[in-house]
Amino acid sequence: MREKELIDVIKNIIGSEYIGDDCAYLKDLGVVVTQDSLVEGVHFSLEYMTPKQLGYKSAMVNLSDVYASGSEPKYMTISLSLPKDKDENFVKEFYEGIKSACGDVKVVGGDITGADRVFVSICVIGKTNERNISSRSNAKEGYKVVVSGLHGLSAAGLSLLKKGDYSNNEFVKAHLEPEIQGEFALKVSGMVKEPYGMMDTSDGLMDALSAIANESGVLLEVDFDKISYDKNIEKFENWQNMVLFGGEDYGIVAVVPEEYNVGGTKIGKVKFGLGVDLIFNGEKRHYSKEDVENKVFNHFNY
Amino acid sequence: MREKELIDVIKNIIGSEYIGDDCAYLKDLGVVVTQDSLVEGVHFSLEYMTPKQLGYKSAMVNLSDVYASGSEPKYMTISLSLPKDKDENFVKEFYEGIKSACGDVKVVGGDITGADRVFVSICVIGKTNERNISSRSNAKEGYKVVVSGLHGLSAAGLSLLKKGDYSNNEFVKAHLEPEIQGEFALKVSGMVKEPYGMMDTSDGLMDALSAIANESGVLLEVDFDKISYDKNIEKFENWQNMVLFGGEDYGIVAVVPEEYNVGGTKIGKVKFGLGVDLIFNGEKRHYSKEDVENKVFNHFNY
Repeated sequence: MREKELIDVIKNIIGSEYIGDDCAYLKDLGVVVTQDSLVEGVHFSLEYMTPKQLGYKSAMVNLSDVYASGSEPKYMTISLSLPKDKDENFVKEFYEGIKSACGDVKVVGGDITGADRVFVSICVIGKTNERNISSRSNAKEGYKVVVSGLHGLSAAGLSLLKKGDYSNNEFVKAHLEPEIQGEFALKVSGMVKEPYGMMDTSDGLMDALSAIANESGVLLEVDFDKISYDKNIEKFENWQNMVLFGGEDYGIVAVVPEEYNVGGTKIGKVKFGLGVDLIFNGEKRHYSKEDVENKVFNHFNY
Repeated sequence: MREKELIDVIKNIIGSEYIGDDCAYLKDLGVVVTQDSLVEGVHFSLEYMTPKQLGYKSAMVNLSDVYASGSEPKYMTISLSLPKDKDENFVKEFYEGIKSACGDVKVVGGDITGADRVFVSICVIGKTNERNISSRSNAKEGYKVVVSGLHGLSAAGLSLLKKGDYSNNEFVKAHLEPEIQGEFALKVSGMVKEPYGMMDTSDGLMDALSAIANESGVLLEVDFDKISYDKNIEKFENWQNMVLFGGEDYGIVAVVPEEYNVGGTKIGKVKFGLGVDLIFNGEKRHYSKEDVENKVFNHFNY
């Protein structure tokens, strides 16, 4: 069972025109909406994550999707399910984490139930406020590929945590308390007038590039040397894979017309073709949709 | 750990003015939003529930809350988490159940993840469309108490299922495939001009009566003999408890000015005081907030 295959099963039944982007754009209401869950043992471990960090990150994961749509997050609902051994303090710290992530975003509802493991599901509503809402199917030949945020930090942090290294370095911090790129995303959605593509890198930089390329029916040519990352990551084995495929960084990829000075770092351009061409050490490597879905790590095993 | 105490902990941290009703009313957007979760082993068992019934009921639980707010449900997002032994067919049937519940409501997003048990969290957005949105704190002295739907069916059905009686009778069906009272709720919200109280009976009829009474600072005087239930329920032991305290019927309680002919069944009126007075066999019994929270079953153990 793979997530993307199951989403096709779901689309076949409910036939929704909305499913495709991380947020659904509800034009009649002038809002976008997104929902994502974090399950203990699947998405996080309480062995290395505090309840406050869990609350913070659960909120950020969803806020990042709303920013990447180009809209302004306004309201949040939270479903929290807890085993009996988690007490009032767990709830208190979790919500302190939520509050520290939310800023002006208001928590307006949700529920709290029992469960055998901790389960968090969060829904965020963003207001479009006349902004230009993105879609991963909007990239066009001639556009540029711009990114904001550092790539690979979170995957490197997770690799340390899994080895029992709970140091408070930049990698571990990026995994447990990720920053998101709201300001950059709002600059893009406030400035660009044409249809454009934007996604966060929650499932990795290559995942976002590939999704935009394949849904738009274009080729994204990207220069590895231009990708922004923390120099210290080069000490990790297979660090290039972390930069390209590592998830949970919550950077932003925007694919916009050349003329807009949206900030961020230009890492490539849109060409005729399909998929992603990565220029690495002067050599061009092609990544089809399937290559990226399979996270072809061995491309870097030389 | 009790749900209502934990909600107080949460309110203290995030200080939201929205938390109180089952739906949050977002006036600037003209919408209401609600989110509720169903956890395997806590809210349902797959021993007696099919994936299709689970999908159907998960949707209905949330649609019922939106109707009870007085608004029209429009959009739904769904988070489904599944253990590895659940295959594509499970997802297909679950979504067929969702579809059969949704009617014109559109599924616009969500996610699908792994978990050790089945976990469903659903968010529904309703459009107010100039309707009068309810609040449990809006009941006033002189108003009448009206209900729609039959009470106790679902609790009776659950008691059969727990004994291994999987008959396809009205009780079991009400538990597995509950009906909701959307039409009645929309009639109320379209007709009543003053502030009014309305809630579904997802946590039981007495829970809804008590919540409206205590949040509004009034006394609801209710006549047990007027409450609508299926006569066959009288065969169950402690059937009165099922009618009063049994959850998951998704009936509607509306507390509205006398002059509106909203339909349903009038079961009582609003008086000066606090809590619920139940007239049973010609005798008046008072239920404080705490009595109802503790589900004082022994009131009927004579």
